[in-house]
Amino acid sequence: MLPVCDVQSRKIDTSFRLTKVGVSGVRKLIYVARPNNEIPTEPLVCTIDVSVDLPADQKGSHMSRNLEVIREIISENIINPVTGIEDLAVQISKLLLEKHEYATIANVNIEAEYFKNSVTPHGKKTTEIYTLIGGACDQRGQTIHKTVGVRCIGMAACPCAQENITQTLGCSKKWPVITHNQRNICSVMITMDENVSIEADDLIDLINESFSSPTFELLKRDDEAAVVIDAHNNPKFVEDIVRVVLKKITDRYSDVPDDVRITVRSESEESIHKHNAFAEKTTTMAELRR
Amino acid sequence: MLPVCDVQSRKIDTSFRLTKVGVSGVRKLIYVARPNNEIPTEPLVCTIDVSVDLPADQKGSHMSRNLEVIREIISENIINPVTGIEDLAVQISKLLLEKHEYATIANVNIEAEYFKNSVTPHGKKTTEIYTLIGGACDQRGQTIHKTVGVRCIGMAACPCAQENITQTLGCSKKWPVITHNQRNICSVMITMDENVSIEADDLIDLINESFSSPTFELLKRDDEAAVVIDAHNNPKFVEDIVRVVLKKITDRYSDVPDDVRITVRSESEESIHKHNAFAEKTTTMAELRR
Amino acid sequence: MLPVCDVQSRKIDTSFRLTKVGVSGVRKLIYVARPNNEIPTEPLVCTIDVSVDLPADQKGSHMSRNLEVIREIISENIINPVTGIEDLAVQISKLLLEKHEYATIANVNIEAEYFKNSVTPHGKKTTEIYTLIGGACDQRGQTIHKTVGVRCIGMAACPCAQENITQTLGCSKKWPVITHNQRNICSVMITMDENVSIEADDLIDLINESFSSPTFELLKRDDEAAVVIDAHNNPKFVEDIVRVVLKKITDRYSDVPDDVRITVRSESEESIHKHNAFAEKTTTMAELRR
Amino acid sequence: MLPVCDVQSRKIDTSFRLTKVGVSGVRKLIYVARPNNEIPTEPLVCTIDVSVDLPADQKGSHMSRNLEVIREIISENIINPVTGIEDLAVQISKLLLEKHEYATIANVNIEAEYFKNSVTPHGKKTTEIYTLIGGACDQRGQTIHKTVGVRCIGMAACPCAQENITQTLGCSKKWPVITHNQRNICSVMITMDENVSIEADDLIDLINESFSSPTFELLKRDDEAAVVIDAHNNPKFVEDIVRVVLKKITDRYSDVPDDVRITVRSESEESIHKHNAFAEKTTTMAELRR
Repeated sequence: MLPVCDVQSRKIDTSFRLTKVGVSGVRKLIYVARPNNEIPTEPLVCTIDVSVDLPADQKGSHMSRNLEVIREIISENIINPVTGIEDLAVQISKLLLEKHEYATIANVNIEAEYFKNSVTPHGKKTTEIYTLIGGACDQRGQTIHKTVGVRCIGMAACPCAQENITQTLGCSKKWPVITHNQRNICSVMITMDENVSIEADDLIDLINESFSSPTFELLKRDDEAAVVIDAHNNPKFVEDIVRVVLKKITDRYSDVPDDVRITVRSESEESIHKHNAFAEKTTTMAELRR
Repeated sequence: MLPVCDVQSRKIDTSFRLTKVGVSGVRKLIYVARPNNEIPTEPLVCTIDVSVDLPADQKGSHMSRNLEVIREIISENIINPVTGIEDLAVQISKLLLEKHEYATIANVNIEAEYFKNSVTPHGKKTTEIYTLIGGACDQRGQTIHKTVGVRCIGMAACPCAQENITQTLGCSKKWPVITHNQRNICSVMITMDENVSIEADDLIDLINESFSSPTFELLKRDDEAAVVIDAHNNPKFVEDIVRVVLKKITDRYSDVPDDVRITVRSESEESIHKHNAFAEKTTTMAELRR
Repeated sequence: MLPVCDVQSRKIDTSFRLTKVGVSGVRKLIYVARPNNEIPTEPLVCTIDVSVDLPADQKGSHMSRNLEVIREIISENIINPVTGIEDLAVQISKLLLEKHEYATIANVNIEAEYFKNSVTPHGKKTTEIYTLIGGACDQRGQTIHKTVGVRCIGMAACPCAQENITQTLGCSKKWPVITHNQRNICSVMITMDENVSIEADDLIDLINESFSSPTFELLKRDDEAAVVIDAHNNPKFVEDIVRVVLKKITDRYSDVPDDVRITVRSESEESIHKHNAFAEKTTTMAELRR
Repeated sequence: MLPVCDVQSRKIDTSFRLTKVGVSGVRKLIYVARPNNEIPTEPLVCTIDVSVDLPADQKGSHMSRNLEVIREIISENIINPVTGIEDLAVQISKLLLEKHEYATIANVNIEAEYFKNSVTPHGKKTTEIYTLIGGACDQRGQTIHKTVGVRCIGMAACPCAQENITQTLGCSKKWPVITHNQRNICSVMITMDENVSIEADDLIDLINESFSSPTFELLKRDDEAAVVIDAHNNPKFVEDIVRVVLKKITDRYSDVPDDVRITVRSESEESIHKHNAFAEKTTTMAELRR
């Protein structure tokens, strides 16, 4: 056993306090409880970033403690699956502050790929992939803030080109009019007190209802037609998608506190351009309710 | 100056001859002559990979020579711009064999981002971005093979959904019928003898004519409508795009030798799915002419 | 239900037969049996590409069948976990040929992130992440070829800088001499007949033994020292890593047929450069045995 | 010419004001003046994101105006090269507010790959690649804030492993002791009033001096030895790199106002781990001067 030579703990002439010191890109398999699913616990491959602050007079942060904390929480998790990755983030943030006794704040961010059952317009079962985002910010002696987020891929059909083409060609409105449509990536991030609860599954549903149409892994002919027709009957700018999501959040979460913070972003990989179009709103529940 | 301690040249008990030893991800700025352009030489940011083989009884390849070769050819290039990055690849491959006297084969691959002037359907000037690919394979004592390639982003509108929707809704054929459309990435790679000549600019034009529609950075309303209408009047599977490109290559390059090798790939970032669809053909001019 | 309008099956004037038509980037959760593990089945998040060829006189391939095939095999897999992702690839390739009755060849490629228990030099348990690669190529009426592959991250310490510094500084050889070291990514891909069997787990072990040192998620001080000392006692060029892996494959798989094909690649993210260094060998068991 | 059908300008029932609506991933070639260089103007391949806010009662933002603005400023730029990409960002932000008459704030972010001449320890000339970052935030009626930033790759050698190994092996301190070293990516972003001036070139120099050693594309044996020895004589945690950069900024920019905001981040691609280690500080000049 090596005699301890703790370079990190060494006192230095006061330098600058650092905001975040930690590790990024740690990959782990975690288990999430899905009480209502056929398979009651779902394994998720996660990418984890954790950090704590560092006092001005201490040379370094103890990097290996971050991995010990992650390992400890995750080995616990195999036995007791959490209901959301944000709960895991909270647990990790608490233990980070415990193990880094010199730190005053701990930040955790987890991203995971998540498979969720879905149903096509004509009733076929599919499994769709989404990204879950869970976060925690634990400041010593204060309420822990956690973040629940999701990122979904859907379809956006442009309302502007549709109207202009209707006019240019004098199209009958009997049938949906052509327009460019494309992949749209929409994300919602909600930051709140530890005790407030928002389900990532609900956010996914809410975003899927805000696209021109959700998308599906498997579409036989009649379903493919239905998705395309739906999308053209619900043309949406990226601006529209963000606003519909915000409206649905306001309606759905009427009971969450005013200080809950929300970021919604929608980005279209434009089929008529080589660049993307995007819209974004950073706000609070208080502002949304005004 | 360090006494030479040439670990690489060291003779070892016969081990395995290695196919490729070299460097990857070398970034360089190169200059390409554009005789007919307003700006006669265009700077391109390149990513370069080079390698040579290694005899079974030599411990290592001299990695720094690869960088010396690239530097030498590029410093020359600032004074004498080449007409294509494949010419630069050929020059580099020749000098690699000269400097690695133990090697029997040199491989060079260059990718560059390339800006090309374009014109929208209604005559507006735009500048579009493409990826150029240039390669060389130089086997000592044999003809050098070079590769000219391009990768372009365009638009693909699905013919199948369009027909099914026409039928389902009983659409009038007076107006183009809706379908899903999306970004399509199409690439062509042509490998030939050093003395055969194919212009990357021509390949870009040929691919742009093979999409449902090319795409543009700037589209005001009338141009946006024209692009969308064009795309819906030219619905194309990924299979169609590859076949149209192959047909155009056959027609356009009737004079190139039979042993010229061609790879064409078209990949659609499907707006109705979270995954992509693709089609690919690897062939020779001889096979295309059959 | 939509009246069938099968645009894909439409006969066209003979055009070009296409080599590969299919889908890429399909994400799925699969289960792999680990008979000797605490957790007997391990879930893996996979990225799947599948394709079949397309006759010259048929307009399109039936893309949705690819997804049906993947879904069918995977739903089966939840009940009967496979022992390797290459077995899943073989099953998918067979069903692809069944469902695409016009096709003569099916190709499947699967990549998955894989967690494997490991032990540090001083005996601490860790979990390390690797990439598994499984493939199948099924040509109607011929033997199926499958591919087993892995990609691992380890550490490479440069022997050349070490010797030169020893000489320049006149270092005592009593202690390991400094050199640059860095992340190395090493991959092995082995392609063989369906009935030959090679374990991905063995390939991971074999690669880990070929680095200057394997790497670990969690290294307390004594383990960190041990890893660094080990790496400096085993300095390796990328060329060395490839050759050691090839030697170990030759020794370990003395019983596999001569026509088994092998590709080994080692790439170092050089700490002293902004670019990478790499070595690669594509070969057969027959050539390795010579 | 199409009759104007301006869907975007349409008044809607008051919805939510959006923070940012715009385009991302626009690729452009721009020219930067380098008065002291052999080549007086350097072409840079840029990736540009621009956005403006959107009033609560307007349906959409005029996306194509963003591209017109970028085109106009860039066509001007070919004739009159700017001295920094942040100046271009400022020009674009001003014109964005002019063209989007309904907007109150414009945001611009530009990233460019930048080649800069360098000299190895033994005096060899090389060309190194860096990323330049330029930004502007223009709020109607207020001072414009601009951002100058750079991202550099260098080398970090770990001080902790070095001390522990010294102790474990009882190494003589006559020669530098081994440790793990790796690629480190360090970025600095400085946000200030439009009239304050900070040179990206200076930031690159300052970061290069803060690594354990800068890195070079071409290192013959004596230079390779020198870089490795330098790095081992200057072992640095990611924490140390951030603090040294902050110290150098404090010293170098004693004349810039207190409200200038600074973010410094250093991330090591650890050679002994598969994950990264990082340190970060977000601060103001006022805080740094305390």
